[in-house]
Amino acid sequence: MTTSGAGLPRSVVDLPEPVLVVGTGLLGTSIALGLRHLGVPVLLDDPSPTALALARDLGAGSPLTPQDTPGLVVVAAPPDVTADVVVASLRRHAHATVTDVASVKSQIAARVEGELAGAPDAVARYVGGHPMAGRERSGAVAARADLFVGRPWVVCAGQAPAHRVRQVSTLAQALGAQPVALDPATHDAAVAVVSHVPQVAASLVAARLRGAPDQAVGLAGQGLRDVTRIAASDPLLWAQILSGNAAEVARVLLALREDLDAVIAALDALASPEADIGARATLARAIAAGNAGHERIPGKHGSAPTTYALVTVLLPDRPGQLGRLFADIGAARVNVEEFTLEHSPGQPVGLAHVWVLPAARQAAEEALTAAGWRVVG
Amino acid sequence: MTTSGAGLPRSVVDLPEPVLVVGTGLLGTSIALGLRHLGVPVLLDDPSPTALALARDLGAGSPLTPQDTPGLVVVAAPPDVTADVVVASLRRHAHATVTDVASVKSQIAARVEGELAGAPDAVARYVGGHPMAGRERSGAVAARADLFVGRPWVVCAGQAPAHRVRQVSTLAQALGAQPVALDPATHDAAVAVVSHVPQVAASLVAARLRGAPDQAVGLAGQGLRDVTRIAASDPLLWAQILSGNAAEVARVLLALREDLDAVIAALDALASPEADIGARATLARAIAAGNAGHERIPGKHGSAPTTYALVTVLLPDRPGQLGRLFADIGAARVNVEEFTLEHSPGQPVGLAHVWVLPAARQAAEEALTAAGWRVVG
Repeated sequence: MTTSGAGLPRSVVDLPEPVLVVGTGLLGTSIALGLRHLGVPVLLDDPSPTALALARDLGAGSPLTPQDTPGLVVVAAPPDVTADVVVASLRRHAHATVTDVASVKSQIAARVEGELAGAPDAVARYVGGHPMAGRERSGAVAARADLFVGRPWVVCAGQAPAHRVRQVSTLAQALGAQPVALDPATHDAAVAVVSHVPQVAASLVAARLRGAPDQAVGLAGQGLRDVTRIAASDPLLWAQILSGNAAEVARVLLALREDLDAVIAALDALASPEADIGARATLARAIAAGNAGHERIPGKHGSAPTTYALVTVLLPDRPGQLGRLFADIGAARVNVEEFTLEHSPGQPVGLAHVWVLPAARQAAEEALTAAGWRVVG
Repeated sequence: MTTSGAGLPRSVVDLPEPVLVVGTGLLGTSIALGLRHLGVPVLLDDPSPTALALARDLGAGSPLTPQDTPGLVVVAAPPDVTADVVVASLRRHAHATVTDVASVKSQIAARVEGELAGAPDAVARYVGGHPMAGRERSGAVAARADLFVGRPWVVCAGQAPAHRVRQVSTLAQALGAQPVALDPATHDAAVAVVSHVPQVAASLVAARLRGAPDQAVGLAGQGLRDVTRIAASDPLLWAQILSGNAAEVARVLLALREDLDAVIAALDALASPEADIGARATLARAIAAGNAGHERIPGKHGSAPTTYALVTVLLPDRPGQLGRLFADIGAARVNVEEFTLEHSPGQPVGLAHVWVLPAARQAAEEALTAAGWRVVG
């Protein structure tokens, strides 16, 4: 039995062949490359002949011809045209299962059902999908066969029978992802909270930096960097994503705005001459509510949240220092659970934050100190 | 000449001795430990005899006695009592320079000037301070002599003459920090944007997770983790910080709420049957404004923003893997600019994101691939 690092061994990949990938951008080409690595025959289609040729040249598959009869069609088009391409694919490939990878699901399912109201058999061949993966770069050149390894891949069964749903779950597993069965409404509500609203918040916080003086921005620390990292995302893609999940995102943002208004009212009360003691409690409650929400985020490997112990090491900014640090950690037989590197403005040093299991902290600190590292605060 | 890793060599630490630290929590004890490491005599005071004894036992200094005449007093009290303790210290130690470490400055300066309106000589001995450092743990046991290494330390001169301001800058430098001269209003406006508003936003986003179903939280990725990391902060401390900078934080949050309202209005328009084409442009503009703000955050070492190239490596979750990875990176003579470790729910693998200078990417990818690593998407 041969196995691929990207997912299932070839012998258990039971997909209706060939697989047609429509849209040769980042996600489509990554899916195609992953399937090619498993030996699955892949056909490609894209409205842009240049994009199609590039994906072919990258080894992602061969261009679709009118004679081809794909068994599974994966629509990897931009979110705002996905529904149209799904409908066209269901019409053109009369026996194929059709799935998609768009990050919104209800609106697309509704439009597919609306367009094909007279063709329930066609609707029953559509299975929605959403691999929770991406990159900050786009296009076929950024594609990777193992983009989906270890990520959740939401599968929305819709009107489809079990054997067609299983084809999409198998696709996800073959590419190394974890299939998660959700209905479209549950999916959209979930991504509004865990993805779309965090994106809006990060963008709004980062936007406040535009008018700030250089001195102010110079005081930025790791907290600001973390909160605003995803503010570097693509505006046009995100306009489509937010539009496609407008009602759910608006619902969560309205709830967030209520909390924000309470904070602003409390701050206004505190800024006035007769400060209100209840206002300070409102602020503490807002931060405490954040504590409670934060504790719900799952830890490593989908397990219950674990509190790791932190070991921070002062790191000279020279090549090879991290190598030496991790060699010393490895020699101490300590597993690193999380790791972040923090740079200090104006100083040629960094702080390496190494999270380990609480039971391993003392050993890690002692081993690193013995190896000559400065374990710091 | 002997040097300390924490800051200036002893020979150039020119502080009026002894230094009195009032408040033996995380910051006060860290300052005291740092000064003791440099050989500076340190006196300690705290309203809690237990806290005072603990700091003394940790080697932070000796308890203040009525005979002592400190040359420099560092008030490291909670933000909401800092002004009172500064005033009491100016009255009790009639020749000492008094500084503080509170994360808000205008309100404290105004209260010190108000309380001592009849004693301009006393007011002229106060120099505001704010070391931009902290930990997620609190108290003397979490203190570290090198907590401030490489961090900005804001110094607000107020009414003080140059030689007293210089004493506080020297204190900051001795502890390894970078003094940054700002007036209190500029400081408060700056930290509202780069610290206080990001904290509120992270808490409000995390608070939305409280009611979310387990399935939804299970879809969380690195974006949500980054945006909400600081939502784990202490509610009571943050209620004091936000209260102490209420007007500035409210001003920035009101501007943020205007942007939020525009996003919500656009989403409402898009969710309605006759969707508005201008609404999608509003969403794109909101994300683009975040791009522009994000680009202003300084990179490593306070330099202009640099775009690093990303190399992502699939990492088996076993002890020693990071050591092996960094040994291989070090052997290729590649410097790591940023590093994050990402874990995949349900899979025993991690993704190591290694940022390098763009010119070094190809060499890094080739060296790692040659060493047997899977460089992935």
